[in-house]
Amino acid sequence: MPYTAPVSQITHTLARIARLDELAATGAFPNFDAELVAPILEEANKLARDVLAPLNPLGHKTGAKLADTGVIAAPGLKDAYRQFIAGGWMGLAFPEAWGGQGLPKPLALAVFEMIHGANMAFGLCPLLSFGAIEAILAHGTDEQKRIYLPKLISGEWTGAMNLTEPQAGSDVGALITKAAPNGDGSYAISGQKIYITWGDHDMTDNIIQLVLARLPDAPPGSTGISLFVAPKFFVKPDGSLGERNSFRCIGLEHKMGIHASPTCVMEYTNAKGWLVGEENKGLAAMFTMMNSARLNVGLEGVAVGEAALQAGVAYAKDRRQGSVPGEKGSVPIIRHPDVQRMLLTMAANVQAARAICYACGAAADIAEHHQDEATRKAAKAREDLLTPLAKGWSTDRAIDVTNLGVQIHGGMGFMGETAAAQYYLDARITPIYEGTNGIQAIDLAGRKLSMDGGGAMRAMIAEVHDSARELAGVNEPGFLHLSQSLDQAADALESATAYMLAEMSANRDKGLAAATTYLRLAGDVVGGHFLARSAYEARDAADSAAAFTLASYFAGDTLARAQGTARALSEGAEAVFAAAGSLWADD
Amino acid sequence: MPYTAPVSQITHTLARIARLDELAATGAFPNFDAELVAPILEEANKLARDVLAPLNPLGHKTGAKLADTGVIAAPGLKDAYRQFIAGGWMGLAFPEAWGGQGLPKPLALAVFEMIHGANMAFGLCPLLSFGAIEAILAHGTDEQKRIYLPKLISGEWTGAMNLTEPQAGSDVGALITKAAPNGDGSYAISGQKIYITWGDHDMTDNIIQLVLARLPDAPPGSTGISLFVAPKFFVKPDGSLGERNSFRCIGLEHKMGIHASPTCVMEYTNAKGWLVGEENKGLAAMFTMMNSARLNVGLEGVAVGEAALQAGVAYAKDRRQGSVPGEKGSVPIIRHPDVQRMLLTMAANVQAARAICYACGAAADIAEHHQDEATRKAAKAREDLLTPLAKGWSTDRAIDVTNLGVQIHGGMGFMGETAAAQYYLDARITPIYEGTNGIQAIDLAGRKLSMDGGGAMRAMIAEVHDSARELAGVNEPGFLHLSQSLDQAADALESATAYMLAEMSANRDKGLAAATTYLRLAGDVVGGHFLARSAYEARDAADSAAAFTLASYFAGDTLARAQGTARALSEGAEAVFAAAGSLWADD
Repeated sequence: MPYTAPVSQITHTLARIARLDELAATGAFPNFDAELVAPILEEANKLARDVLAPLNPLGHKTGAKLADTGVIAAPGLKDAYRQFIAGGWMGLAFPEAWGGQGLPKPLALAVFEMIHGANMAFGLCPLLSFGAIEAILAHGTDEQKRIYLPKLISGEWTGAMNLTEPQAGSDVGALITKAAPNGDGSYAISGQKIYITWGDHDMTDNIIQLVLARLPDAPPGSTGISLFVAPKFFVKPDGSLGERNSFRCIGLEHKMGIHASPTCVMEYTNAKGWLVGEENKGLAAMFTMMNSARLNVGLEGVAVGEAALQAGVAYAKDRRQGSVPGEKGSVPIIRHPDVQRMLLTMAANVQAARAICYACGAAADIAEHHQDEATRKAAKAREDLLTPLAKGWSTDRAIDVTNLGVQIHGGMGFMGETAAAQYYLDARITPIYEGTNGIQAIDLAGRKLSMDGGGAMRAMIAEVHDSARELAGVNEPGFLHLSQSLDQAADALESATAYMLAEMSANRDKGLAAATTYLRLAGDVVGGHFLARSAYEARDAADSAAAFTLASYFAGDTLARAQGTARALSEGAEAVFAAAGSLWADD
Repeated sequence: MPYTAPVSQITHTLARIARLDELAATGAFPNFDAELVAPILEEANKLARDVLAPLNPLGHKTGAKLADTGVIAAPGLKDAYRQFIAGGWMGLAFPEAWGGQGLPKPLALAVFEMIHGANMAFGLCPLLSFGAIEAILAHGTDEQKRIYLPKLISGEWTGAMNLTEPQAGSDVGALITKAAPNGDGSYAISGQKIYITWGDHDMTDNIIQLVLARLPDAPPGSTGISLFVAPKFFVKPDGSLGERNSFRCIGLEHKMGIHASPTCVMEYTNAKGWLVGEENKGLAAMFTMMNSARLNVGLEGVAVGEAALQAGVAYAKDRRQGSVPGEKGSVPIIRHPDVQRMLLTMAANVQAARAICYACGAAADIAEHHQDEATRKAAKAREDLLTPLAKGWSTDRAIDVTNLGVQIHGGMGFMGETAAAQYYLDARITPIYEGTNGIQAIDLAGRKLSMDGGGAMRAMIAEVHDSARELAGVNEPGFLHLSQSLDQAADALESATAYMLAEMSANRDKGLAAATTYLRLAGDVVGGHFLARSAYEARDAADSAAAFTLASYFAGDTLARAQGTARALSEGAEAVFAAAGSLWADD
């Protein structure tokens, strides 16, 4: 069953959560017109549904191949990429000065949700280009911007991020790739990078590598890494392509999923590159790439979850097994309450994750563009807080959601080539790359919670209580119940936050042991809040029934657990701390 | 890293939970001697660790193949199976009268946990033979027993279960395979069966199919199915093999995991078979096979979870990333609290699942062999209650546990050929086959809870409260805390049970919508109870520290959530009921 973009859910989320109207009111998006939203989403849906989705099972089966000439993309993707460029999709949210369309970020998120939902392996290629573009925008020289940005933003070239080395994964500071000055302003880069997504392919004429490496006199660790840009083909002054640079893909990984996304081992042998940003400040530049990539990986979780939901609904409507009282013969399994529970769990979690991701994108726009400095500052803190939730919570839920998708399919779901299986396998990478979800949890419990003594989280909790008050004002039993659920869940998050703030300074190992549960709880509460908020905003509109159903189920199934989760957070951490690895101590 | 059987954990569980001493005291196991346990486990470990585990990655990569002559087992498995037979492992818990060793069931569970942990795809072959043996033991004629049992119990032949058809999965009553009387006491079976595990292979001279089919005049639905036995090669009066029967494997499924276990499409074309049990009573006979298989699939969940844990521990001790305060250089990731949390979660859940499965096997032995009728009856009710927990809870936890195993490995875990990935992929079938976990939940909430008005569950809850009282008597803060956790969790299960009993009669759809959460909660509480009970029993012994750590972590991380789960159970079900599938109503 083909993927079709969930246009009504996306439209709802853009309006109710991302608040495109508020973004437009900043005046920063002169090209934006509310009338544009529907046609943009419909055009993107055509690309996703008609071009990319049909190629997804084929890519899963065939994968990318490494030939003598380099990596060959899976069948059909080169042409699909051509159509992607032709539609101008790459530049949606980038500055007009460099050929972009200067539209709000959530609109780009909506489009890329569709692209990932239709074909996550394909979507990874622009995802990595985003990182490259943002690094050059933020840290590149004027010349670098002039050479690379127009063609990256048009999609004519793609970008890739070269961070990981065999000994340097989560601990990127351990990297050893070297960059030696050539004396002409360029550097000679040598070393091996692994897990380089779309590090090579045949879909475009050029590929722009952003590479972390170490200068000869660099201090050890993360304070000694610098960022370089190295094109596959050098760019002549007139913009035409010259000689080939001396790096190449020497191997492709055999992965569980995203087979059509080439995961390259890249070898750099005195490859020529140029410094981006300052010497030894590569970590900061890397975070520019990573923050964008983290939100986009969270979005992948939303997208693949949505695709799994659609496949689950279609199968559950089609597959007949068992009967219901008072009816003869077998019924579609969607009639069975346990199947309805699975589908509702999928739908509510996907929508909560979508809301978190779009809200994160909206916060980024406000942080960048709002006229008022205090508003910008608060939005930046909100974006920083939501980023680990967008990445960590959404992708953990993607595992749960795609797992339920397999389960609904029964034996068929275990067959390696069904769509449900592909989604399950593709989804599995999302909690790992761009910072494992453990790293996200530590980022939340450490860096993000310590900003302003927990100010960003306190503001978020206050927002949840405010929503609860507003919902209670509707004076209907359903909204009253939602309001109480929100209040109690916010209380649970508040006490967990107090525990985290205390332990992260008094007894850091305990705090770290609780971090993943804290991220889970925070995502549950914020996600439930957004769902309830959407239901409230939509209460007199056409999208009210679906919004209320999702908010209400999520409150019942998830927010009702918040007090228990908060208790497990501290009690579990105490037990980890007490055990202190004793079970696996060396003899 | 090679699998090694967790002999100390298994020994602990056999002693503290399965209570081999109590089983021996029934007098039903004259061959059993407590001194035998250690050498049996050690010999089984040799088979598992030295023979089966090394073949596991190869089987994952190569899989079984279908040739013109039939199915060819993955490399090395034929010889491994020969060693398995030679060890006499197949007959451990079967009656001496048919060549078995007449030992307690938990001892066989312990051995088969090792076999599945080392090579789950291989372990499935004897697992299916178990079902065939038990069906013939319970329902076969004397002649059928004489012909088939000795060679099935020795392992010289294997058995397979032919239930599923394309239109008849969970709803086995929808099957249409036909069995027409030949007039000589045999039947001509025609039809297609799918998902037949080890339905064909080249490891033994003969394969005995147990086949569900429909007699010509059978009523529709599940009251019209009968069970037949059909050997691949007919057995002559002298026991030698004659002509080949007319069924064959016409295809192998391409699956996510268990690649070395051939999943066959079987075509029956007037194949000759003989009725097992009474006409149209095939469903009862099927449940004989299924109950055994359900416990054994639960055991697979334990086994593959244990294997994932071992791989996770080994990787976490080896892989160095990041630093800890006060130490120079990078440390093994097992030093990081978040990794310790993942490993403890894996270990505690695996051990809880192991306890549930072994307790279920012990209850089956008591139910069959105890001298006292009331004790037998209570044990039967306990076995019936524990079976859906053993199957459903253990395999859901296997997904969680193997998922954490992948996560600990980071990017390496996503590579399709690492052990962590194989365990994740192999584990995914366990919540599906032998009755999906949704079916297990309905079995628990329906059949099992309605026995004696919830008497078996009430007895279990009383047992948890009793344990809590005993633990409080130890008068140490750690045990006091465990005791309180148990009491509160038992209260949560009690209120959830009251909700289930009420709704399953008043408003069945609500009860069914809550069933999966109920199974989860019941498994959490019973598992936590067994862990706490073990810690109590071991409190002055050498195994006390590990037992207390696991019990304590599980109480903190899982039992602390019980009240929240109970609340989500009812609130979630109410929301499913209120939504009534409205989100996906046809336009």
